Amino acid sequence: MPEFAINKITLNELSYEQAVEACARHGFAGITPWLDDLKHLTPAQARKVADDAGVSIAGFCNAGLFALHGKGGMDNAVDAARHSIDYAAEFGATTIVTVVGGLLPDSKSIPDARKFAFDGMVRIAEHASNTPVRLALEPLHPMYTPDWSMVGSLSDANDWCDRLDNGVGLTVDAYHVWWDPDFEVEIARAASAGRLLSFHISDWLVPTGHMLLDRGMPGDGVIDLTAMWQTMTNAGYGDYIEVEIFSERLWKQDPDAFLAELKNRCNIAFPA
Amino acid sequence: MPEFAINKITLNELSYEQAVEACARHGFAGITPWLDDLKHLTPAQARKVADDAGVSIAGFCNAGLFALHGKGGMDNAVDAARHSIDYAAEFGATTIVTVVGGLLPDSKSIPDARKFAFDGMVRIAEHASNTPVRLALEPLHPMYTPDWSMVGSLSDANDWCDRLDNGVGLTVDAYHVWWDPDFEVEIARAASAGRLLSFHISDWLVPTGHMLLDRGMPGDGVIDLTAMWQTMTNAGYGDYIEVEIFSERLWKQDPDAFLAELKNRCNIAFPA
Repeated sequence: MPEFAINKITLNELSYEQAVEACARHGFAGITPWLDDLKHLTPAQARKVADDAGVSIAGFCNAGLFALHGKGGMDNAVDAARHSIDYAAEFGATTIVTVVGGLLPDSKSIPDARKFAFDGMVRIAEHASNTPVRLALEPLHPMYTPDWSMVGSLSDANDWCDRLDNGVGLTVDAYHVWWDPDFEVEIARAASAGRLLSFHISDWLVPTGHMLLDRGMPGDGVIDLTAMWQTMTNAGYGDYIEVEIFSERLWKQDPDAFLAELKNRCNIAFPA
Repeated sequence: MPEFAINKITLNELSYEQAVEACARHGFAGITPWLDDLKHLTPAQARKVADDAGVSIAGFCNAGLFALHGKGGMDNAVDAARHSIDYAAEFGATTIVTVVGGLLPDSKSIPDARKFAFDGMVRIAEHASNTPVRLALEPLHPMYTPDWSMVGSLSDANDWCDRLDNGVGLTVDAYHVWWDPDFEVEIARAASAGRLLSFHISDWLVPTGHMLLDRGMPGDGVIDLTAMWQTMTNAGYGDYIEVEIFSERLWKQDPDAFLAELKNRCNIAFPA
């Protein structure tokens, strides 16, 4: 019986407290907040909000993005990631979505950017290994390579995990990897290394009007979510199906109507 | 000394005859037209236009897109591809850009779409092998998987060429594969199989406003074209650097001003 969680970005217009309430009301068992959602709360307070509503902590966003402030910004980026990991640990999350970052500002060098990001990963993986929180490295769709992630495929993400060898696992987001003909092979590889930590879903719309903010509800696009879920469960994944939708269009909908429809869509795509 | 060619789509507002003239005027040695550009000309007439202007035939667009008209449309798609190949042969092109097509209409199955496209490739590769024209399979960026191409990486494209084993080569388009950390490895693999047939360039803009129609001029984006060219030449590629820019913005510019600037950009990115 699949259990569903909501990534807080899916309810971008709501506060964390409202989102937790809404999850409880619509039968979403877990929530994954972003650190920015919780700025006004201590980790214990944030946890209590979820506990009081009977909603579990599915995950936490996020760590990484090492290149964002340039070569001189590495220490700050690592400090910020450590802070996120520590907050996540106190909050009671067991994983943190980790996105390695894109090109360095004013540079086109992929090798330089990859080395920079990898060095950052080494530093925060070391830190995370002393906490109950595992880094869940998320390969992003190759259209996000320049801005957000030098790691654009499951194969590459598995390679990074192998090289880091420090408890680092994977976030598998259907939107980012659905196109990959090696999906089954790389999921099996990740499973055998015990690193399938999270599964995010949304849908790829045809056409897509905006590269970041036009994801669809399950069923509105072309991703065979049912087949991907089958692959995940066959590989032994048994954790949440987490809905993560960036969509300016859907963010404007009435949250209750949206969540009711979303739950329907989830039940269709992922039958018990 | 690199030689430059223009893919006709780059001069979308011009006729074929105007584009050939413009290439000659601005020092672009070759042109790659699309079949649609030549509808009013026999292959011999089209060739004479280029010959008279002293412009070479760099390539031809295109064959493939098997899924476009659904499962029942395979024979028509193959016939259309054969016609394009035959036209290209009479025209004097030695390669034809080949794009395998996306998902079948009303289907989300990647395995089905890949099998369908591969079957089509077998049929047209057989046909091409009896002509002087080689299929130049072009992997497209994974953001085009649903619409245009089940083959989204050089690794996958090399695998398809290995399996087809019928003289099929590759078009390497920087816009589609620049993000790939395996670029060097796969270019070397392609070169050792004698299948590096074409090299297309443009630039990836950050941000990109439209997935299809917002490519940039060399130098306006984040692609390290100089490094990619170095990899290509190190692998033994010695044919044209072909500019292929889909851009509603650039298509509106004055063609002569545009081509003069484009030539400058090419000379900067690819120094002699």
